[in-house]
Parts: sequence; structure tokens; C-alpha cells
Amino acid sequence: MTANLPHAYSRLETIFRRLDAIRGARSMLSWDQNTMMPEGSAEVRGEQMAALSVVAHGLVTDSETANLLAAAEAQTGALNPWQAANLREMRREWRHADALDANLVEALDLAIARSEIAWRGARAQNDYKGFVPAFAEVLRLTREVAAAKAPAFGVLPYDALVDEYEPGGSAARFAAIFDEVEAFLRPFIGAAVARQANQPPALAFEGPFPVTAQEALGREIAHRMGFDFERGRLDVSLHPFTGGVPGDVRMTTRYYEDDFTRALMGLIHETGHALYEFGLPEQWRGQPVGRSRGMVMHESQSLLMEMQVARSREFLSFLAPLLRRTFDRQGPAWQAENLERHYWRANPGLIRIFADEVTYPMHIILRFRLEQALLSGDLPLDDLPGAWADGMKDLLGVAVPNDADGCLQDIHWPTGSFGYFPTYSLGAMTAAQLYATARKQSPEIPDAITRGDFAPLLGWLRTHVHGKASLLHTDDLLVEVTGSPLSPAAFIAHIQGRYGA
Amino acid sequence: MTANLPHAYSRLETIFRRLDAIRGARSMLSWDQNTMMPEGSAEVRGEQMAALSVVAHGLVTDSETANLLAAAEAQTGALNPWQAANLREMRREWRHADALDANLVEALDLAIARSEIAWRGARAQNDYKGFVPAFAEVLRLTREVAAAKAPAFGVLPYDALVDEYEPGGSAARFAAIFDEVEAFLRPFIGAAVARQANQPPALAFEGPFPVTAQEALGREIAHRMGFDFERGRLDVSLHPFTGGVPGDVRMTTRYYEDDFTRALMGLIHETGHALYEFGLPEQWRGQPVGRSRGMVMHESQSLLMEMQVARSREFLSFLAPLLRRTFDRQGPAWQAENLERHYWRANPGLIRIFADEVTYPMHIILRFRLEQALLSGDLPLDDLPGAWADGMKDLLGVAVPNDADGCLQDIHWPTGSFGYFPTYSLGAMTAAQLYATARKQSPEIPDAITRGDFAPLLGWLRTHVHGKASLLHTDDLLVEVTGSPLSPAAFIAHIQGRYGA
Repeated sequence: MTANLPHAYSRLETIFRRLDAIRGARSMLSWDQNTMMPEGSAEVRGEQMAALSVVAHGLVTDSETANLLAAAEAQTGALNPWQAANLREMRREWRHADALDANLVEALDLAIARSEIAWRGARAQNDYKGFVPAFAEVLRLTREVAAAKAPAFGVLPYDALVDEYEPGGSAARFAAIFDEVEAFLRPFIGAAVARQANQPPALAFEGPFPVTAQEALGREIAHRMGFDFERGRLDVSLHPFTGGVPGDVRMTTRYYEDDFTRALMGLIHETGHALYEFGLPEQWRGQPVGRSRGMVMHESQSLLMEMQVARSREFLSFLAPLLRRTFDRQGPAWQAENLERHYWRANPGLIRIFADEVTYPMHIILRFRLEQALLSGDLPLDDLPGAWADGMKDLLGVAVPNDADGCLQDIHWPTGSFGYFPTYSLGAMTAAQLYATARKQSPEIPDAITRGDFAPLLGWLRTHVHGKASLLHTDDLLVEVTGSPLSPAAFIAHIQGRYGA
Repeated sequence: MTANLPHAYSRLETIFRRLDAIRGARSMLSWDQNTMMPEGSAEVRGEQMAALSVVAHGLVTDSETANLLAAAEAQTGALNPWQAANLREMRREWRHADALDANLVEALDLAIARSEIAWRGARAQNDYKGFVPAFAEVLRLTREVAAAKAPAFGVLPYDALVDEYEPGGSAARFAAIFDEVEAFLRPFIGAAVARQANQPPALAFEGPFPVTAQEALGREIAHRMGFDFERGRLDVSLHPFTGGVPGDVRMTTRYYEDDFTRALMGLIHETGHALYEFGLPEQWRGQPVGRSRGMVMHESQSLLMEMQVARSREFLSFLAPLLRRTFDRQGPAWQAENLERHYWRANPGLIRIFADEVTYPMHIILRFRLEQALLSGDLPLDDLPGAWADGMKDLLGVAVPNDADGCLQDIHWPTGSFGYFPTYSLGAMTAAQLYATARKQSPEIPDAITRGDFAPLLGWLRTHVHGKASLLHTDDLLVEVTGSPLSPAAFIAHIQGRYGA
């Protein structure tokens, strides 16, 4: 691969591979922090994480890297499309890193570590006011980051933050999509809830459901879907996530003895994330172009599995007998039809992570608007709880009884993630668009799922999504695969099909 | 602390604190590799570890660090003894790092990663020949390291490697001690074995011993001894070790359902290591002077707990009723006298890690001599199995049936650790010397142990050993605490007392 390649480009591959290893190390520490680390070690860990951030930042912003980037960009004729895309992604990373000085990177890392601890305490005690000082510091530093990056990318400050999660994404484009979805959902949610009220209710699943049985079930399904336990683990954490690195994927879940349905769908969600990481091209491992495309595409992979596949009639007909065997149960509650009644349910509520796929976008639209206002300063921190309550009332008709179940529910803002929330719902829309295309191009996919065979689906995803890594921008990839850029049309059609009249 | 301090020294503290965080991160990854990591992820992990090594190396060898060291050494008058010792340790680290170029560091790390995998396979299949190519590469690079470091320290190549584990240690000093021990043990081992043959045999403990009960027992004893589970963990690994960092100590053990005695003493051994890490001075956390003094002192802490304390009459009389409760057993096998018969037993054998405290030094003396010959080239790799067999025959009268139980049994050489083995036995001698002094200065220690109260012992260790960190060289610390430098006298007296006529 390196023969005849310009020296500058080759050298950049070496530097970025090392950078990837350092970030990978940091990712493993983050997994450990959330699964294994004793509580008293948070401060020591914070120092380790900060040190690795500083080192990674220094590697990208080193003058050698800048010189090599300029030299390589003057010789792009010698590069193939993957190499050219790799160079483009290196430049994007450089822009993100070079815009910030090392002190700001370290200060933000330390502020986030403190803020996360403060947030955990504040949420447990429903004490938003007590959280404000730590939160204000994170917000102040995040504004500094946004202000420093905006000119480097030639975009608005919020969009510069978005680019970290979704390269090229912008508030204007997101807002156009969300406005369309909101217009659809405002009347639809109420109508769906009313329709459900006239249908027989879902029969309850009587517990308890032993954790060992739930775990065995989850492992079997994840394995069938394609999770490689030789290069990955499943553990328990308070907040399920998928971490690690492509060659060592760490996913987590959380079990509830009285309700197997949450861990099950959560695990399938994380499996979708994990399959993306497993399917990234081995040849580009460690290079920027070899990474997942961004959080919209990543979330599309988890939601494709969780919402499109695992709530489909085909999957639930495969799942029903497996559940009966796993938990040794019988009767009408354990038939596929009851699973559909259980999993197809629009139910406006307070908590985003418990939301169904119909009401979920409203949670995101609220956060998307509020985080722009927080960042710009239009919304002072003291006014956040009120604005949150107003938004929940307006978008979902829900009254917010306390901040713990309101603006303190999510870890994102406390840890400095602004511009991340939109990717969840854009991911749901991308999932709908991809899965519609997949079924059109490979009509055997649904039948195979009925038999618990995910190979046709995984094959299609590997070819059209996972194997493409960061070669193309999200919209260009969608045009190539589905024929059009991201649009809410497939999502709306999917929701109408499953929840409509 | 920084007021009125020379700028150069203060800046060095900042640099070395970051270095410590990076090494700490690497230490956590190493723990994960041995406890959690899926097998297929070894190569990815190898890259992460190598990247952190390179970064750490770069931080020490940066020209800024060299300039600051020179500047700080010109202003030592402003430093207190801890700061002066810190600067001394910084210079030592710099010498180790500066002697090597980054390519050699990375090449060795990668060669070790490959060699470790090859060794695991070779040992499982008793295939020394198949291991030789990977081993030869590690040895070749280790020789390069020794050759590069020897002039930097003004010592012989082997001693330059020793200094990594035991600062200031030398083959000449070690050999003098080992010769004295060998002269004592040659007749003593046979006589002890003969004496045992005339005594009633130890009664067997009838299993099975459930892992959950063994773990609960181990946790209770570790907790009583002072292990802080709020800043540390206990997990399972194939080869027990203590890793992590002082603020997040990770110890491991391995349970055998049919034999509780191994995990129990293994865990007490690791607890001794862990207590040293917990007891290092908080004020010097992250600085070179704040680290443990070296592997001799570290091993002395584990062996003080395992051999001096946990095999003492006092501890065994505390342990016996605890065992009866834990495993719900009765009868003569479960009395303290039988525990003594079990744990006080000289038994020449093949495997170092199963060796008793009497025969153990012979295993080390063999390795100490062979590793010097391997490093110098006097012993070609092809001749190692033969030399091993000859040595075992001569020192312990044991015939070696295969290489898996011979020269392939230990991970040290395959992973490039030459000069490490001596620290085990020197640690055993240090432990004897320290514990004799501790009992003299705090006569309440043994009585307290009879009650399962380790506070007097831990207090003494914290004051005289743990809290001193790397302030003094090992021998200087021993002189300060015990009145004399390391000598085998206390160890020999201890062995004669427990196993003699």
C-alpha cells in the first residue's frame, strides 16, 4: 500500500495510527470507568484520561503534522479514493485539534470529570441548583471550544460542535428535518394514543426473570446477529453503552429482574452499534477513514437493529418461542401478537431513554432547541428547568414534576456533549431509510429473520454501510445506497405503517 | 509546595506527573489484558500499549526535560530531602529512557507482544524449539537495551537491566548474597526433608471448596489486613498479580475448587503488594519519589504477609476457626497444628510458583545464573533446556521431564524481563529482616495477629516502609529501619526456626 505513495501521506498514516492507538487506550479506560472501576478512584482516572487527551491533541497539532498535511494535500493525484478520503479526514481532525490549545483541552476534561460527579449527586437529590456551578464551568469552556472552532471550519459555533459527532452536519439542515417530523408527529401522537386505547391492552409478563437467563438470552441473540465474543465483551453498567475499539468491542447492558423487555431491547440496540464497529474495514483499521462515519450513521445501526428489525413482526415471531424456552413460560402473553402489543406502543413520557420510537423525536427536538439556546446564552442556566417544563408540555403534553426527571435526566450536557442529541433521531430516520432499501434490494432479509438468521441483513449492511467506514459523507453515502440524501419520509412511512390507522 | 521552588524543578514535577498518568493508563490496560480482554483482541491491545510506551518515552527524552533536569540540578540547595530525592529519581528515569531510541522501545514492545503469544502456545504444547525464534528476537532487543544503558549508568549490561527493577542493584552484590544462601540451603534442604519424613503427615483437606466461599474468605482477610475495596478490586486471572495504580489497585487471584490453600496464600501475597501501593504517601502521588522503592522492597511486602505473617503460628491460630466457619468443616484436619504441618513443608519440586519458602531461593539462583549467561551469549538459546535440567538436578536434586515444566514455565524471559528474578528471593530476605525488626520494635504485633488485628503491623509498615516510598535506596532504608543493609542472616534464622531440627 505504501509503495509509490508520497512520503508525506505515508508518514501521516503512521502518525494517525499511533493517535488511534492512544484514543483506543482512552476508550478502554472509559469502559473500565463505567463497568469496573471502584468509586474512590475517579480522580486518579480523571488524570489518566486528561493526560491521554493532551497527548492525542499534541500529536495532531505538532508542527510536523501540519507540514505533512500541507505537503500531502499538494500531491493528492497519487492517492486512491480511500487515501484521499483519509487525508480529508486527517485534515478535519487537525482542524478540530488545532483550533484548541492544550490548556483548554485539559481544562475541559477536568471540568467534565468534576461536572459528571456533581451531576450524579444532583440527579440523585433532585438538586439542579447545586449542579449549576459545575455545569456553568463546562458550558463556559464548551462555548470557548465552539468559538475557537467556528472560524476554523467556517461555520456557526453550534455547527462546529456538531461536526465532532456528525461531520458536515448543521443546525439549519437538522432544523428543516425536525420541523417536518414535528409537523407530522403533533397530530399523530395523540391519534395513535387514542387508537391504542380502543385496542386490547398488552398482557403483562409475570416475573421474576433471573439475570442469568436474561444474559444467556441476550448473548444468544447478539451472537446470532453477528457479535463476535472473541473480539468483544458484554458486561453490566448503570447506563448501557458500546465502547472499546473496533478490534475489542465492549458493550454493556443493565438487567431488571422484574422486566426482561428493557435489557433485551437495550442489548439489541448496543449489538447494532457493535456490529458497525466489527464491520469496519480491517484494511483501514487505525486510520481516520477507517472509522465509523459519525454518530448519525452509528445510531442508525443500533436503531435499525432495535426498532426496524427487533420490533418487526418477523423478529417477534422468532423471539416468542425463544422467550418461552428461556423463561419456561406458556400462555397468551408469550405469543408474538402480545409482544407486538407490548413493543408497538406510543406513550408520551418524561424520560428520553424509556421513550418509544413515536414520541422519541419530540424529546430530541426539545433538547436540540434548548442546547442551541444554552450555547448562545439566549437561555440562562437558571431558566433551563422552566424552559424544559414548557417544552415537554408543548411537544408531548407531559407535566415535569421535578428536575431529576427533567433537565437532569441525561449525562450529555453535564459531560460537555452539545450537538450530540440530534444524531439519535436523525439516526432513527437513517435507519428507516436504509432498512427500506435493504428489504427492496434483498427481499430474503425478513424471511431469514423469522428463522433467526441475520446473515442476509448483516451481509447487506457490511457491503453498503459498515465496509464503507468514512469514505463518504453521510448524505453522499445515503445517496449512493438509497438514492437520496437523508429525508424523514421513510421514518414517517414506517411510523404510519406500525402505529397508524 | 511550589512557593519559592526553582522553576525548573516545579516544571519537572508537572511533566513527571503527566508521565505517571500515562504509565498509569498503560498499567490499567495491562490489568484489563490479563483479566477482561477477549483473546482475539491481543494485537489491537499490543498497539495501544506500544503507543503509550512511545509517548511516555518521548515525554522523558524531550529536550525540554533534559534542559530542565540540568537546570534543576544546578539549584539543589533550594530543595528539601524529598524534592532532592525526586530529582534524583527523575534523572534515573531520564537515563533509562534517554539511552534508548524510540524505535528500539517500540520494537521491543511489539516483539514482547508476539513472544508472549508464542510462549503461551509453546508452553501448552511443550514446544521449546517452536518458541525459539520469537524468544531470540526479544533477547536480541534486550541485549541492545542493556548495551545502550550500561554506559549511561556506568555499570555492566546486566546491572543496567537490574536497575529498572531494583535501582542500584548489581549482579556482584546479588551473587554474594545468593552464594551464602546456597551454601546454607544445600545441606539444609535434604535434612529438612528427612526430618519431615519422620513426622506425622499433614491431614488432607477434603473438598470441594466453592469458589464463592473462597472469594468471601479472601475478601475478609484482605479487608482485615487493610485492603481498601473503595480504591481497589479483586478479580480472577490465570496468573495472579497486583496491578493498577496506587489510587486504583487491582489485584487478582485464581481459585481451585479442590484446593483452597493456594488461592488463600496467593491472595495474601497480593494483598501485601497492594498494601504497599495503598500506603505510598498521598503527597507524592504521581512523582517518581512517590513510587514504591523497587521490586525487592515490593516483593518483601508480599512475602512478609505471605511467608512471615500468614504462615506464622499466630496467624494460623486465627485462621483455623475462620476456615472451619467458611467451609463448614470440623475435625483434626481443621486445627491450627495441621495447618502448620501443611504450610511448613520443604518439598523440592519443578515449578517455582509452587515452591515452598525453603527451596524457593534455589529456583531463583538457577534463573539468576542462566539469565546472565543468556544475556552475555555464553549460553546459546538452543542449550537452555539442557542447562536448566543440569541446574535443577544440581541445586534441588530434581529431574526435569519436559520444557513446559522447565525453562518454559515462567513468563519473565519471554516478555523481556531479565534481571527481575533475583528480586523475589532478595525480597524474601528483606521480609525476614523487616519482620524481625517490626516484632522487636512493636512486640504487640504477633498477639494482635492472633486476634485477626493487623493494625499494629500495618501501622509499623506504613511508617517505616510504605510511607518512605523512594526517598532512600533500598539498602539505606534497611539501614535506617533495621540497622543493617540487606543480609541473608534473618532469612536463614527464620528458615532454621521454622524448618530446623
